[in-house]
Parts: sequence; structure tokens; C-alpha cells
Amino acid sequence: MITVTKLRAAATVAALSAASAVPAMATPVNGSGIAWDIVEGLTTEIGPRPAGSSAEDRARDWGEARLKALGFHDVRVEEFKTRAWQRGPESAALTAPYPQPLAITALGFSVPTPKGGLKAELVYFPTLAALEAAPEGSLKGKVAFIDHAMRAAQDGSGYGPYGNVRRQGPTIASRKGAAGVVIRSAGTDNHRNPHTGVTIFADGVAPIPAGAVSNPDADLIARTAARKLPMAIDLTLMGKPFPDATSGNIVADLPGRDPSLPMILVGCHLDSWDLGTGAIDDASGCAIVTAAALAAQKDGQTLRTIRVLWSGNEEMGLAGGGGAHYVKLHGAEPHAIAMESDFGADRVWQVKFNTAPENKPLADKVKAALWPLGIVPHDGLADGGEDVTAIIKAQSLAVIDMGQDGMHYFDLHHTPDDTLDKVDPAALQQNVDAWAAVLAVVANEAGPIGKGAAGK
Amino acid sequence: MITVTKLRAAATVAALSAASAVPAMATPVNGSGIAWDIVEGLTTEIGPRPAGSSAEDRARDWGEARLKALGFHDVRVEEFKTRAWQRGPESAALTAPYPQPLAITALGFSVPTPKGGLKAELVYFPTLAALEAAPEGSLKGKVAFIDHAMRAAQDGSGYGPYGNVRRQGPTIASRKGAAGVVIRSAGTDNHRNPHTGVTIFADGVAPIPAGAVSNPDADLIARTAARKLPMAIDLTLMGKPFPDATSGNIVADLPGRDPSLPMILVGCHLDSWDLGTGAIDDASGCAIVTAAALAAQKDGQTLRTIRVLWSGNEEMGLAGGGGAHYVKLHGAEPHAIAMESDFGADRVWQVKFNTAPENKPLADKVKAALWPLGIVPHDGLADGGEDVTAIIKAQSLAVIDMGQDGMHYFDLHHTPDDTLDKVDPAALQQNVDAWAAVLAVVANEAGPIGKGAAGK
Repeated sequence: MITVTKLRAAATVAALSAASAVPAMATPVNGSGIAWDIVEGLTTEIGPRPAGSSAEDRARDWGEARLKALGFHDVRVEEFKTRAWQRGPESAALTAPYPQPLAITALGFSVPTPKGGLKAELVYFPTLAALEAAPEGSLKGKVAFIDHAMRAAQDGSGYGPYGNVRRQGPTIASRKGAAGVVIRSAGTDNHRNPHTGVTIFADGVAPIPAGAVSNPDADLIARTAARKLPMAIDLTLMGKPFPDATSGNIVADLPGRDPSLPMILVGCHLDSWDLGTGAIDDASGCAIVTAAALAAQKDGQTLRTIRVLWSGNEEMGLAGGGGAHYVKLHGAEPHAIAMESDFGADRVWQVKFNTAPENKPLADKVKAALWPLGIVPHDGLADGGEDVTAIIKAQSLAVIDMGQDGMHYFDLHHTPDDTLDKVDPAALQQNVDAWAAVLAVVANEAGPIGKGAAGK
Repeated sequence: MITVTKLRAAATVAALSAASAVPAMATPVNGSGIAWDIVEGLTTEIGPRPAGSSAEDRARDWGEARLKALGFHDVRVEEFKTRAWQRGPESAALTAPYPQPLAITALGFSVPTPKGGLKAELVYFPTLAALEAAPEGSLKGKVAFIDHAMRAAQDGSGYGPYGNVRRQGPTIASRKGAAGVVIRSAGTDNHRNPHTGVTIFADGVAPIPAGAVSNPDADLIARTAARKLPMAIDLTLMGKPFPDATSGNIVADLPGRDPSLPMILVGCHLDSWDLGTGAIDDASGCAIVTAAALAAQKDGQTLRTIRVLWSGNEEMGLAGGGGAHYVKLHGAEPHAIAMESDFGADRVWQVKFNTAPENKPLADKVKAALWPLGIVPHDGLADGGEDVTAIIKAQSLAVIDMGQDGMHYFDLHHTPDDTLDKVDPAALQQNVDAWAAVLAVVANEAGPIGKGAAGK
């Protein structure tokens, strides 16, 4: 470790000397206060803002006013129709072999349980694979419980495979004939706050009531299952799809000195799940990209325009949320790079690229700007985020990912605990500083910027 | 610190040499497994067991069977009538200036809100003293919010003064004419799980609906109050007093070789609050005292009888719970020392005494038995615990307190998060080892044991 550190320190000194356009990170860039004020304001004055709700609508008014007050140009709200989902009353209890209340929440796109609740045998599956291996029809009239505990990882990589329990588990259970499904939350905490999030019923599969219990409740079910006595559940999940919701994006620009150059797009999402106040998911993302865009222009206009996209319905939009609507309206405007902040407010620790081989000098300048913040380059390919994926695909854009520390993200993600107190102001500001450093480099790049097959 | 450590190490060696009756703590005493099995069993097979509920009744059956299976003698369930309280549906939302749902739970002995909810102005008080200073009648028709955030302390000492917000706040608010009261939870975590617990309406004061919000919700209310806009709340708390409940104690003995000597009483409580499964409060306490009593007899009967009391209705009994009933039935039997475990499952770090000056050699033997476990004597006076207070007073008993680390206790206390996963098996076993070491000393003491004015 000491050797590596020394090598990096040497590289940093060399890189900094070479990259005169990089702001000196020893003194804080502007943006201090702006990011915090956005997170504090959205969580206090709006709170939960699920797609299609009046709260999301109020959040758009709030965001439009705030972006104008911050000096953004051409601030516009762009509404769109979208599919969404509405929570209803929800509760659950084990009724056999031991009566125990369960802390449960419905998954997005769950359908309602019958009036009076769904009372059924509960069948335990330790993994998604075990459920997949169950004979067809074997779950008829029963409720499947899928365990499969996720563990924390700094890059959040557990969310892919373990999140599949939430995304695919209900479809698999329905195919086996299940009347309902309950999963262990896709989350890494040990609090009685279950994690919501959408499930995706595959075409032709009958949607069934689907919920997640908290990790301590999943532990209880696992311990009960280990006693080899028949289990039964009484399940009430009244949430239901809301197919014709109205959501909307906010788009706002900081014009560059040369409007003919393709712009830099930085995205986040304004909607949140309903259980918390959406502080880390994703008020912090909007705060980071907005404050950083302003900070990148603190010494005057950048060469290229920086555009901020506060997207609507990221959480429940699937392929039809704010990112898709952005392409509909702006797909013909030239973009150079798209980036997104949608992984909380903890510190950036790594950076990934998907830029053309000819842009190696540009990528090196970005790396040089980040060395002083302790941010290391990673070999993996940058992929942006849900709100900018559509425009990246449509225009084959270059991407830079600012990788945040995800060790605690899935303690809070999609839970009632996603609240302002979980945001560390110093870490939030580190994000702003890191983003501002990168934007100052890329928005001042005069040469062509392109996506690379190699992604380095 | 090094000097103190060295002194203590020297003292330990000397004390250990002198105290041949002390079990060698280098090898684990018995009890390993017994304590964990009790906590695991009670939380899995019974779960929440509020006083007066059928679950508390089932817990008594469970406990009776378990204590018999563990070899205790004369295991008896002693039922009694007691006052209690039953939770009902509960919810709350800020309705002005910004609509926001609140995570709330009713306090024990709250009375129900009117049908349709209590809709009222919400008035912010930063401290209990600020509420006390409000003019009489100034809260007529309003709901008082009392902030006053508690911080963690190793000895749990914050619970006295900050717990008074819960115990006394509703009475003070009612005297000022308030229609309801909401407090910041008496707790030290930052999760959306409010802390319940009883409030005590003073004689002659009209009971009002009383609830606690979680710390993040209290933060939200404080931030909203700071904006100096009128606040309003919509409050539903349907819990109500349950004055004629049936609870019960379990009493079980490990007979000593000399039944004529006053016995050693070790207590805990079997009931729990309803929100969690009562793992740390107080399944762990019952597990610790029970496993330790058995471990103290691992090499044969102790000289004195060790009696275990698993008390009923500690949480809502006030002066009329299991401790009072124990004195009614057993107040004439001779006791020597009473001890209680009711502060979770974290490690014992200090020991306090209230023993006669003539028992200094006995207290020194106890200290010597605890040095190898890193447990330090404390000057303060031992006072037992709620379930043994009545017998201590009735017979003026000697007391030894095994002080547990309370830094995290009030993260969990009286919340949905009081579940098995919060119990560290190694820390639980350290408690058993420490208690067993003390019981092996005191239950083998042949001479008289008395309470001391000085308490040292």
C-alpha cells in the first residue's frame, strides 16, 4: 500500500503540473452551501415526491424557482405522461406456527391483495435459484418467501444480483402459481424499515401482490422456517398500478461561450420513493450536479454549455421515465458528454470513463483534477445512469462516472430512513468539488469529444 | 491510563490469589448456549409480549416450560391483575406549512384522538423548560411539540432527564390546555422508528393523546419551525388504557445447600413493548440471569438458594407490576441480595454496590471475580431495577448492579428495532460469565449480608 500511495503521489504532482486548466482544489470551489440548501429545502419543504403525485408536481415548481434563483438560463418544466404506481394500506403477520407482526412494504407494480387480506401458507426459499427450481404449479394458492441476503459493497455491486430477487422474483413466483410473494428487502441494514422499489412482471405473467420485509423480519422468517413447522401469513398490500400518471423534467442551462460546441449534460432525478424524503435518492444528486455546474463557471463562462436535467419518474418509469422524455424533446440537440449523480451523498472514491481513445489527454486531465481529492481511476466502463441512458444511447455519447462510496447506500435506499440526517455535509461538498473539477475540464475542452469502444 | 491499568493488573493478581472461591474465568463458565437459546426462543416463538396480552400469557407458558427443562425447582407462574395499555391505529402528518407524513407512535397511557383525527396548530418547544414557561391556557386546542434531543451515554444517564420529556411532558402540556402532545423520541438513533414508553398523567390532570416521532421526524419539525411559518398537524393515536389486565410472574429456584440462609434473588422482566420482539428489553436480561444462575452451580449446589424472577408487566405496571406482586407473595421469605438485568445485552463494564460496611470482604471478592473481565468498580450506589425495587425496599436488601454498556441501548429501546439481530452473542456471554462469577461468590457467602448506608 505504501508503494502504491507513493506512486500515486508522484503521479499527482506530475499530472497537476501538466494540467494548468484544473482548479486548485486546495481552496474550496464555490458551491459550498448551494448543494446543502437544495437537499435541505427539497426534503423539508417537499419531502416524499413519488412520480405522478401532487408532491412531485410541487417539487417541479420548487425546482424551477430554485434553478432560476441560482442564475440558470432557459429553465423549463417539461411534463409527460408515464406509468407509475400508488401505495395503499399495507400490513402483514405470520399467523403460524407463531403469531408475529411483520414490517412489510409493497413493491412497485404489486397488485392489491383480496379484500380482508391474503391468508395462505408461506413457503421458504433460501435463494432465487431455489425458487426457480420449484416445480411448476407447486406454489398454487401459496405465498413464496425469497430470502437471499444482500451484503454491502463499496461499488454497490451487490444490488445487481440481489436486486434481481425484487425485479424477477415476483414473476418467477407467479409462474409457479403463487398467490403472492414476499422477499427479504434488497438492503444491507438491520432496521425494521423494509426497502421498496419496482418489480417488473414479465409480459404474459399475471401480476401478484408482492412485498418486502425488513432484514430483521426476514431473519425471523428464516429462523422460523428452520424449525420445520408449517408457516402461514396474513398479507395485506393494497398498492396498485397507476398507468396514466403525469410527471415532468426540469431542464436548465448555464450557457457556454461557444454555443456551437456540443454541450455537457449532468443529470439526477427529482422524484423519490414515498417512504422517506428522498434525501440521498436523489435530492443529493440534483444538489451535487447543480452546485458543481455553478462552481465550474465561478471564474466565468465555460467554453461549452452545461445543462442540468432534474428528471421525473426515474423510480417507476422503467424505460418510459424522464430520460426517455428528454430524448423526445432534446434528442436532436448536440451533446458531448452525459453524467449522472444518483448514488447518494457519500464521497466519490473512483472515476470511470467511456471516452474515445483520441480523448486520452482529456481523460488524463480529468484524472489529474481528481488526484488531489483521493479519487482513483477504475478500469470499468462508465455507463451514466437511468436518466441519461436514453440520450447516451441515442447520440452514442461519451460518459464519465463519478463513483460514490456505496457501503451505506443500501442501508437507506428506498426506505423511510432516506432522510436529511443521513447526508454528511462534508461528503456532499466533496462530491460538489469533484464534479466541479471534472466539469471545469470537460466544459472547457475545445476539441472533439467522443465515446470509445475501449472505454479508457 | 497506563498507570491505572498497571495498578489494576497488580490488584487483580493479588485479589485472584486471595479469592479461591472465584471460578477461573480464563475457561468459559457454563451457560454458553443457554442464554442465546432463551433470547432466540422468546423472540422467535413468542415475539412482542406486551403486558396483559395473549402473547405475554403464551410467554409465561414458554418460560415455565423452559425453566423446568433447565432443571429449576419449584417453577411457578403467579398471575396478577394490573393496569396496562393497548395500542391502536396510529398515524400523523404535518399539514402546514408543508405536507409531510410523520413516523409516530403513541405513548403508553395516551388516550385516543377524536374520530377522524385531531387537526390542530402545532406549537414548537425546544425544551421541556420552554413548555413549562408557556402561559397557562396558551395551548388551548393546540398540539404541543417538545424537542429536547437526548444523547448517548455509556451509563445511560441521559434517559433520566430526557426521558422526563416523555414521562412529564404530556402532563405539563395538558395543564396548559393542549389538546394533544407530540415529543421527540427519548432515543439516540436516527431511524424512522419512534420510541414508545409510558407517560404518567399526574393526578387531576386530564389525559390527552400523546405520541413520539422518530428523531429524523423531530429534525424535520425543528427545521420547519425554524422557517417561522404556522405549523399544523393531523394526528391519529387510537391507543387506550387497559386498566384491568392480567399479567404474571414466573418464579423458579436453584436450591442451596443451606435453605436456612437468606437467598439471592436475580430478576428481569418477561413482558416487552409491542413494537419490537423485546430482544434487548428484556429477553436478554432473563437469559443472562438464568444462564448465570445455572453456571454458578456448575460445580454443585451453592450454599444459598438462587431464585430467578421473570417478572410480568414491568413496562406498564408503574408501581403495580410484577415487582410489587412478588413482594405480596414472597415478602415474608428471607432474601440476602437482589440484582436485576434490564439494560440490554451489551457488555458489563462497571459494578456498583449497596452492601453493608461489614461486607467489604465480600464486595472485594466480587470485585476480584470481575477484574479478569475488565469490569471496574464504580462509586455510585447500586439500586437494582424495577422488578426488584419493591423487595429491596421491603426487606432493606443488599444490592449489586452489573452496569452494562449503554452507548447503543437507546438506539433500540422501545422501538421496532429491538430484535434478535441486535444481540451480540459474545457480549451476551460476557454478561453471563460476569453474573456467574458474582453469583458464585455471593451465593457461597456463609456470613451475614446486609445493606449499607454508605453503599460501598
